[in-house]
Order: sequence, then C-alpha cells, then structure tokens
Amino acid sequence: MDIQFNHFPYPIYIAEQSFPSLIDRLSRQIGKKFLLTDQHVAQLYSEQLEKLQSIEQVYVHTLPAGEESKSLSAYQEVLTKMAVLDFTRSDCFIAWGGGVIGDLGGFIASTYLRGIPFIQVPTTLLAMVDSAIGGKTGLNFATYKNQIGSFYQPQWVHIDPAYLKTLDHRQINNGLAEVIKYGILCDPNLFEQIKVSKDQLDYFSIIRRSLEIKHHYVSQDPYDQGQRQFLNLGHTFGHAIEAVSHHQIHHGEAVAIGLSWIAQASYQLGWTHTDLKPLLESVYQQHGLSHDFVGDSFDLLNAMTHDKKSLGQKIHLIIPIEIGHCIREAIPTSELMSWIQAGRGK
Amino acid sequence: MDIQFNHFPYPIYIAEQSFPSLIDRLSRQIGKKFLLTDQHVAQLYSEQLEKLQSIEQVYVHTLPAGEESKSLSAYQEVLTKMAVLDFTRSDCFIAWGGGVIGDLGGFIASTYLRGIPFIQVPTTLLAMVDSAIGGKTGLNFATYKNQIGSFYQPQWVHIDPAYLKTLDHRQINNGLAEVIKYGILCDPNLFEQIKVSKDQLDYFSIIRRSLEIKHHYVSQDPYDQGQRQFLNLGHTFGHAIEAVSHHQIHHGEAVAIGLSWIAQASYQLGWTHTDLKPLLESVYQQHGLSHDFVGDSFDLLNAMTHDKKSLGQKIHLIIPIEIGHCIREAIPTSELMSWIQAGRGK
Ligand SMILES: NC(=O)c1ccc[n+]([C@@H]2O[C@H](COP(=O)([O-])OP(=O)(O)OC[C@H]3O[C@@H](n4cnc5c(N)ncnc54)[C@H](O)[C@@H]3O)[C@@H](O)[C@H]2O)c1
Ligand SMILES: NC(=O)c1ccc[n+]([C@@H]2O[C@H](COP(=O)([O-])OP(=O)(O)OC[C@H]3O[C@@H](n4cnc5c(N)ncnc54)[C@H](O)[C@@H]3O)[C@@H](O)[C@H]2O)c1
Repeated sequence: MDIQFNHFPYPIYIAEQSFPSLIDRLSRQIGKKFLLTDQHVAQLYSEQLEKLQSIEQVYVHTLPAGEESKSLSAYQEVLTKMAVLDFTRSDCFIAWGGGVIGDLGGFIASTYLRGIPFIQVPTTLLAMVDSAIGGKTGLNFATYKNQIGSFYQPQWVHIDPAYLKTLDHRQINNGLAEVIKYGILCDPNLFEQIKVSKDQLDYFSIIRRSLEIKHHYVSQDPYDQGQRQFLNLGHTFGHAIEAVSHHQIHHGEAVAIGLSWIAQASYQLGWTHTDLKPLLESVYQQHGLSHDFVGDSFDLLNAMTHDKKSLGQKIHLIIPIEIGHCIREAIPTSELMSWIQAGRGK
Repeated sequence: MDIQFNHFPYPIYIAEQSFPSLIDRLSRQIGKKFLLTDQHVAQLYSEQLEKLQSIEQVYVHTLPAGEESKSLSAYQEVLTKMAVLDFTRSDCFIAWGGGVIGDLGGFIASTYLRGIPFIQVPTTLLAMVDSAIGGKTGLNFATYKNQIGSFYQPQWVHIDPAYLKTLDHRQINNGLAEVIKYGILCDPNLFEQIKVSKDQLDYFSIIRRSLEIKHHYVSQDPYDQGQRQFLNLGHTFGHAIEAVSHHQIHHGEAVAIGLSWIAQASYQLGWTHTDLKPLLESVYQQHGLSHDFVGDSFDLLNAMTHDKKSLGQKIHLIIPIEIGHCIREAIPTSELMSWIQAGRGK
C-alpha cells in the first residue's frame, strides 16, 4: 500500500516484502544512482545489495555501522567518490539503512551541487517511524550531535517492515520509544496497540500511524520553530541521559526514561492530576524498557542547558497531561533542577 | 532608500554611506552575532570593524582573502569557533565581504544547527549585483567549484555603494560583467547606462536595477531548474575560460569574453541577424574588458562538458538575439565545438 500524505510533496510507499517494487522503482529512476549503506546492513542483506547493484548505473558506498559515520570525514569521503564518478544534479542519491545513513545521506544529497534527488529506504524501526520523514538531516561535529545539518525532503520513501526481522531487541526498542512518544502526544489507541509482545506487534499499522502523527506536527512547522517541538516530548531529559551515560544508554532507551520522568514530574509538580507512571509501566515491562537511570542530576542539568534547544534563558518543555494530550511550556532554566528531581521522584 | 522586492521574504537595504544604519540595525538584532570577513576587508575597514565589535556580543572571525577560503577546512574552522562560543539557533551570522565570504558564510549559516539567521553585507560590486541575493551558497571541493552548497535566503541584506571606492579596476570589472549580462538579457537601458567611465557610473541605480533583474529570474525558479538558467548567459564559456586559464583570468573578465563569444556565435550560426559585437565593443573599451582569450578550444570543450550544468547529453545555452532579448536552447554537447569556434571567429 502506498501512502500519500497531504501537503507532503512526495510519496511514502509502505508494503511488506516489497523488495521487487523497490528494484522496479529504482530501475525506472533516471540518471545514475549513488547508494549509501553501512557494513552491517550490507552484510545482512548482501543478496539484495547484489540485485541493487545489478540495476544500471548503481554505485554502492559502504561505511562502518554506527553513529561515528555521521561525521565530516565520512561526508568528505562520500563527496569525493561522487565527484570522481561525475554525479550531476540529474542523478540521485539513495540512503539504504538506519537513521545514521539517512541523516548523513540526506545532508550529502542536500548539499552536493546544492541538492540532488534523494531517496530514503529506512531499515530500522527508528528510521521508519521517525528519521526518514520530516526532512531533518544531520552530522555530528566535534562532540556536538547534529551540530550541522539541513532541511531537505526526499523524492520518495520506501518502507518495508520485513527489514525489521533482523533487528535486535534494543534496536526495536529504539524505535518503540518514539512510538510510545507519539501515543502519549496524541493517540491513546496507538499507545494501547504496543502493549503486546514484540512478535505480536502490527508493525505496518504502527509505522503508518506514527508517520501520520509525525507528519501532523512537521507540516505545521517544517523548520522547527514552534509546533514541531512537541515531537521533543521526552527528549530534553532523554538527550541528557544519553550524553551523561556516554551513549551506553541508547537513544530510545534514554527517551523512554525521559518520557517516564517528564510524566512523573508533570504529576508531582501539579501540572496534571493523572499519575501516568503506572500506565507507562505496563508497556515498559512488556518491552524491557527502564524508567531509571543512575547518574548525577547536576550532570544532567548541565547537559540540558547546553542542549541547543535551549533558547536563551528559557527552555521549552513538552508536558504530558494524559495519554494523548500534552502541552508546551517555556520553563526558566533555573527551574529545571526541580523538574529533574520531581521526574526522578526525589 | 530601502528596496523591498515582491515575493522576496526579506528586505534589501540600499543606501550610500549607510554604515550608521548598519550599526543601528545590528544593535537591534537579537542574540549573539558571528561576523565573518576576510583579512583584506578587515584591514581596509578596520575602523568600521572596531565599531562593529563594540556592538554587544559581536564575535569577529577573519579568513585569508581569496577563493581558497571557500573550502571545507575554512568551513570547519568557523564551525568550531561557533560551537565553542555556544551559538544557538536564535543567534545570527553576518557575512561582511565579497562573494567568497558571502558564499561560505551562507553555507555555514544554512547548515549550522540546520540554519540560523543570516545577514549579508556585500562589499564588492559582484556581491552587490549578484551573489548576495538569490540564495545560492557554495564551497569548492577538491578541484570542483561550488561542488557543495545550499539554497538559503538571508534575513536581510545591507548594500552600501560606498564600499566600492576601495575596489580596484579588475574587481569593479568583475561585477560590471554581470551588469552587462543583465543588460543583454533584458534591459537595453541598463546596457546604455554603463557606457561611461567608471567614475561616472551611477552605482546606486545600476545595483538597484541589477537586483531587480536577478530577482525576476530567481523568483520564478528558486531552485535553478529552468528559468534561472538565463542568468548563466556568458557563463558556460566564461567558466571554461576561467578554468583553462587556471584562474589567471578573473571571473568577470571571463564572463565578458564569454558574453562576446556567445553573441558572436549566435550571429555566425544564424540565430540572430544582429551582429552584437560592435555594440559590446564600446562598453568593453570603456572599461578595459577583453573579447579574446588565447587557449586551446579542446581544453575549453573539455572544461564545458565537465561543467555541472551539463545535463546528460545536452547543454542549455542562453543565446543573445539582441540587446535585451535572449533565448534558451538545449544544444547537443556534440555541437558545442562549433559554438566555440564560431564564438572565436574561427
Ligand atoms: N532525522 C531525524 O529526524 C532523526 C530522528 C531521530 C533520530 N535521528 C538519528 O538517527 C540515528 C539513529 O538511527 P538508528 O537507530 O536507525 O541508527 P543506525 O543507523 O546506526 O542503526 C542502528 C544499527 O542497526 C543496524 N541495522 C540497520 N538496519 C538493520 C536491519 N534491518 N537489521 C539489522 N540491523 C540493522 C545498523 O547497522 C546499526 O548498527 C541517530 O544518529 C539520530 O540522531 C534522526
Ligand atoms: N552565490 C552566488 O549566486 C554567486 C554569484 C556569483 C559569484 N559567486 C561567487 O562569488 C565569489 C567571487 O566574489 P568576489 O568577486 O566578491 O570575490 P571576493 O570575495 O574574493 O572579493 C574579491 C577581492 O576583493 C576584496 N574586497 C572585498 N571588498 C572590498 C572592498 N570594499 N574594497 C577593496 N577590496 C575589497 C576581497 O578581500 C578580495 O580580495 C566566487 O567564489 C563566486 O563563485 C556567487
């Protein structure tokens, strides 16, 4: 089934076991094709990769798997290859992998000759429900995450939940945390839908609904100046936890903890009468997600105030009121410590 | 006087001796300010620079003058400084210099945290009539010019023709070649206006009219997919001449030669009955511009077909019919040599 969102100027194709359609669609795409992937995906799907390479004028470039590839040096490496292969503005760029490949690939596609057609084939749950749409691209710079980037829309996105079969437990959780976020933001049904074990999850439906919700916020605010900040629910704490744990705690795990803390703080500080923690508990238990993180609150505060989302002396927090309803509030950074402590139940 | 173009979402301020307004406007700009300039401009205008630095939270970064600063290493150098100074999305970036500083600065502003407010203060004629508006940013990569870049609009542009007083003859010609181009494209009056000596030129009026013309093409085609190609008049030959001369011939000088050749070829190959060469002659003599370039035609052809503007097997040429009227034609690259030869009168 293909989804075409209103206002989105490009199609999103979602279908199970749809590799033949991918091959077909790419064969019909004009120009040369630069396909970027990581070594892990390339190995797992070597058979598909061979078939992809059998399409006329497909050039494959493989980077090491992991966040380290979202770097300026990987950017240069790929640009050099594209320049040598004489890629022009009528050729295209394909990102075939998780959020790392998508973010780096999007930045390359948006800046090579000021932008060439870009195709996203996300292979992780996180990329399918989140990073492959919305148009944010990014690179890490020095110790700063996504310090460089652009807003750039793909020409089309191909989503095949079949890729999820090879993802491990932690990588699925990485994506599920974002789905839980969407549920808390605005959809109690979606929240209910994930209260089952991983092998019973209806990925097709979850991905579809997640994209609709993400699209709802993005379309109102493509350049992230207001409404889109709702998508940061759980992320202000989450990013800090990730950083303070030196990335031992994965993004999704950190977001899950962040969601739990912000829900708890909202209740403790009197923003809501609903104690959401027990509601989250059932989902977290099901998927082996944690509410807790052992780390110094001052370190967290420090990480949060260096977060680029802090505008001057206030920070926008997205505060859960109930499952399916949140509000956005500018909180003075001086009050953040009380939020952290309330979130941790201290 | 301030010009506000329709459809342009930002103001362009043009006024003589308007440094006080610049100071005033920057003082009212919220957030920290990162000002990029080159050593040559910094030295010539050290007094202004001091005053600019006296504005609250202005940080100045100076790069060596010249095209070499449009590099990934300069990009990294500036990004590092901005990150260390903790620049956020609510701060702003000022490019104070010629096209090099504007192109690099625009790319930095468009990609730092996915884009921060950007202010252009062009100080060369070329930057005032051309590069500071239109939204193209760019870096050179390896041996490729503008191989990396983005489309990004400034928040406002401040143009003060007083800066032109310190520009040398060749640098004025650099900009005048673009003005001649605008005249040939669509304005016989503009063309007439520059038939006077440099010290008699009415820069205010020339800049204003040039920006109107550039805007006319850009607004119809912000991402350079068609109509905007008219602005390449003279540039297909011009870029090749620049490259083959190893940049001994400056951009504007090369464009002037390119304009002359394409006009000549148009006449020789029967696209027009008007021999434009004598009309160009008077302007070229006035300003010491040349029609000729000694260099191998095969080298030029090679440079042209590697030019990124070549889409597949055809190349779009902008062909002058008379002063004020040009057409766009897709010419097979196989016919390019005859255009070069006709242009050179061989
Ligand atoms: N652009 C956005 O809007 C946005 C949103 C959220 C996150 N992100 C970014 O996304 C990145 C994280 O994405 P991610 O979690 O997909 O990371 P990732 O791309 O590193 O993928 C995680 C791991 O899964 C492997 N993998 C990929 N597909 C697989 C498959 N089908 N089977 C088995 N293994 C597979 C990868 O090789 C990698 O080892 C971060 O850099 C983050 O900043 C971007
Ligand atoms: N973005 C666009 O649409 C666009 C259009 C045309 C050209 N460009 C780019 O612009 C660049 C060329 O611009 P440029 O010609 O301004 O080059 P530039 O920025 O190198 O300036 C030329 C020289 O003039 C000096 N200078 C600047 N202001 C001065 C002043 N007021 N008085 C005396 N000297 C001064 C500079 O220090 C430099 O040495 C090229 O890189 C080209 O690719 C971009």
